[in-house]
Amino acid sequence: MKTFSNVSRAKHLFSSIGEVADAVLIVNARMPLLDDNFRYLTGAIGGVFEGSMAVATPRGVTIITSEMEEQIARKTGCRTVLASDSNETVALLRTAVRGRKVVGVNMSGVSHSTMKWIRKALKGVRLKDVSKHLNRARMVKDEGEIERIRKAGSIASKVADCIPEIVRPGMTEKDAATEIDYLLRRSGADAPAFETIVAFGPASALPHHQPREKELRKGSVALFDFGASFMNYKSDMTRTLFTKPLDRRMARVHKVVADAQKAAIRRISPGVKARSVDIAARDIIRDAGYADRFIHSTGHGLGISEHDPGVIAEKSKDTLRENMVFTVEPGIYLPGKGGVRIEDDVLITRKGAQLLTRTDYEIIEI
Amino acid sequence: MKTFSNVSRAKHLFSSIGEVADAVLIVNARMPLLDDNFRYLTGAIGGVFEGSMAVATPRGVTIITSEMEEQIARKTGCRTVLASDSNETVALLRTAVRGRKVVGVNMSGVSHSTMKWIRKALKGVRLKDVSKHLNRARMVKDEGEIERIRKAGSIASKVADCIPEIVRPGMTEKDAATEIDYLLRRSGADAPAFETIVAFGPASALPHHQPREKELRKGSVALFDFGASFMNYKSDMTRTLFTKPLDRRMARVHKVVADAQKAAIRRISPGVKARSVDIAARDIIRDAGYADRFIHSTGHGLGISEHDPGVIAEKSKDTLRENMVFTVEPGIYLPGKGGVRIEDDVLITRKGAQLLTRTDYEIIEI
Repeated sequence: MKTFSNVSRAKHLFSSIGEVADAVLIVNARMPLLDDNFRYLTGAIGGVFEGSMAVATPRGVTIITSEMEEQIARKTGCRTVLASDSNETVALLRTAVRGRKVVGVNMSGVSHSTMKWIRKALKGVRLKDVSKHLNRARMVKDEGEIERIRKAGSIASKVADCIPEIVRPGMTEKDAATEIDYLLRRSGADAPAFETIVAFGPASALPHHQPREKELRKGSVALFDFGASFMNYKSDMTRTLFTKPLDRRMARVHKVVADAQKAAIRRISPGVKARSVDIAARDIIRDAGYADRFIHSTGHGLGISEHDPGVIAEKSKDTLRENMVFTVEPGIYLPGKGGVRIEDDVLITRKGAQLLTRTDYEIIEI
Repeated sequence: MKTFSNVSRAKHLFSSIGEVADAVLIVNARMPLLDDNFRYLTGAIGGVFEGSMAVATPRGVTIITSEMEEQIARKTGCRTVLASDSNETVALLRTAVRGRKVVGVNMSGVSHSTMKWIRKALKGVRLKDVSKHLNRARMVKDEGEIERIRKAGSIASKVADCIPEIVRPGMTEKDAATEIDYLLRRSGADAPAFETIVAFGPASALPHHQPREKELRKGSVALFDFGASFMNYKSDMTRTLFTKPLDRRMARVHKVVADAQKAAIRRISPGVKARSVDIAARDIIRDAGYADRFIHSTGHGLGISEHDPGVIAEKSKDTLRENMVFTVEPGIYLPGKGGVRIEDDVLITRKGAQLLTRTDYEIIEI
């Protein structure tokens, strides 16, 4: 596995930032207000890093943290300095940006209160919002990131293959989610990428249903949305299966969703507008008469976060580029009846979409 | 289990807010920038609610969301309105706060960019930072919250009891974490409360170590920090066990930490300063010669978030009140050697601390 280098990461970031800023400051507050860009820039595995900061310059990344996270910070290879109180933090921060003309801040990632604190701590320093530049840098993955996402995708695919073996009518949504999470870990995930969704019957019409004590019945759909986290990087896939006797209407819906996903994946290529990929999927669903039942966008970026920058949606302004990674996840949701979603992860290569999860368009009965 | 009422929740919130504001707006951006106060005010179970909002007035809570989350939103009992684009969102928001004089915003929970958006959307409306009031309201738990945390605590305690049965020398940290998470779920947790920490040997000196492929050796300490999430509420506990032959120095450290925890718990009572609880633990650790090896605070609030408002620390300004819930988790960390932490959850009652997890001060050899 390619090792993380804060120097290359900083270089990549500043190739997006150009002349806009000559340093970038990332501030973590308390959970859940931690900025994914902290892990992106530092490569830190483990730790929580509440109240910690990362300062990137074109030459590398400095971590300002407390003694509690010291050892994990040092393992990253980043320059690490320790503060034991807020005065020391301010002093270390001022030192880290000394001589820099403009300090970029992720103003979409820090709270309004933290922004006030930064302004006070860096009085006299020019600050600039670089959230868009950070997003742009993160959208294009490097070799090490792709390797990690690929591994996360292969773990999730393995688990997908096992679902028909472990889920049976009579089992509850919660129990199925428990088994899936266990399999994810046993297959090499550090953790599930997010709270696994298992939705049986009508609940599958809720894209973000939380598993309950509900049993899987006969003649029902069963939706599974899950992913692996591997060395900070995520995969995200969804499969919709059926219990016997097959509900013919939902099986037809499944076919439409599968066709929509295929069309979207075929449309993917560097230089293509993300919105045209969304439209490729949406057209198929509309033609089948379900236009108003596809109630979310076709995909989102995937990386260190399960919802990474970038979106495949009707209103997206993104253009696909080589080495971006996206989910492709059309769905049709019939309230009170059930839903079907099929989701896979793709890497954008010169030749088009390369699948990072194993696609499967068959009707699977469990 | 007591059902959630957005009307009582709003009433509780405004008893903290008083005259400062007559409405409170909570805005979720994208993951991870979701504000826990959204779930706190709406009681929503499941869903992601990116881009959704909650507006509380003294009479109840309104959810502004998209069709994707509609059904989950409606289940909360909150008034639910749907927006399909940002113009509609602004219009619904303006309607929800119509006639209100001052709208409170959690300025520690929204990003700087979102704050700009709110200012524009609510042009002409007076905005006020109510983050401190929200924290104050959340610190004092109601009956339904306590019931859920108590259940989360009892699940974690059950799992703690099983650890000596499932962990053996030769097992890896990752495998032990996998088994613990599986047990948490099998014991009734909706999910682990956070990424379970398992740290063997020297890694236990890192308070936030991420489990690796490292095997448990003989004569070692093994630290387990885990919790259950149950209907949005969390527990959080830590046990440090030993493999044979017993490392006598670490066993002595264990005794010191146990004594520190006992002293802290004894100190807890309504009206007591949180800092004096920290000092009670810190004094024992200092007297044993480890003053500089207790590198974090004694505890934190616990509730809908695993790090809820409130902190038991030397610099804390909090005063303990009835129905607050805290972790009590002193630790001693010897770099390169190992660490011991003992963590339990307590509810503050008129009579003092009531344990929500089953304490255990024995030396357990596995």
